[in-house]
Amino acid sequence: MKEIRYRCWIEIGGEKIFGPGPLRLLELIEKNGSLSKAAKEMNMSYKKAWGLINKLNMSHEEPVITSQKGGTRGGGAAVTERGRELIRQYRTLSEKLEDCLSGHKEILELF
Amino acid sequence: MKEIRYRCWIEIGGEKIFGPGPLRLLELIEKNGSLSKAAKEMNMSYKKAWGLINKLNMSHEEPVITSQKGGTRGGGAAVTERGRELIRQYRTLSEKLEDCLSGHKEILELF
Repeated sequence: MKEIRYRCWIEIGGEKIFGPGPLRLLELIEKNGSLSKAAKEMNMSYKKAWGLINKLNMSHEEPVITSQKGGTRGGGAAVTERGRELIRQYRTLSEKLEDCLSGHKEILELF
Repeated sequence: MKEIRYRCWIEIGGEKIFGPGPLRLLELIEKNGSLSKAAKEMNMSYKKAWGLINKLNMSHEEPVITSQKGGTRGGGAAVTERGRELIRQYRTLSEKLEDCLSGHKEILELF
């Protein structure tokens, strides 16, 4: 099968801040309510996942993820409204890019 | 500086065949008339460059690069009309994607 693939990400000062990996991590935190479970499901180290989330939180005025230590649920993490807005906008952007690619597949005829 | 970045490539049967790297290689072969000089300018090994070009030629009915051994110019490589068409179409596709991204920068306001 011949196909055009793409990847799209956000950089701040030349550093990758958000893309398919952090998106997946946010989605899994939303699903699991836990950063460690989300990291595990992605086969990513907790340290790496924490680093991604920390970078993401630092680049926003409001956090995209909040975490609670201890308590009845034994800690956990949650995606904030700001984080959900980021997920929504990244999905919209991806759909627009896919629409654009669908309309320009002539290059595949060269292969 | 906040920016949306992207990368776009062609896959056949799940294998990357063409993208920014092979594009640059074709451009440098066009400029230098030589695969080894093109590879050197990209800090790429001759073996890797040859592999990329071979994969690209094998995926087309007509070659995108032709090479001559020996002769008065001591060998060399040239981009065929098919190869130039590939360069043109990939540039067009990149411009379309850039236009699309320019029109959807709202996500950057979240950062």
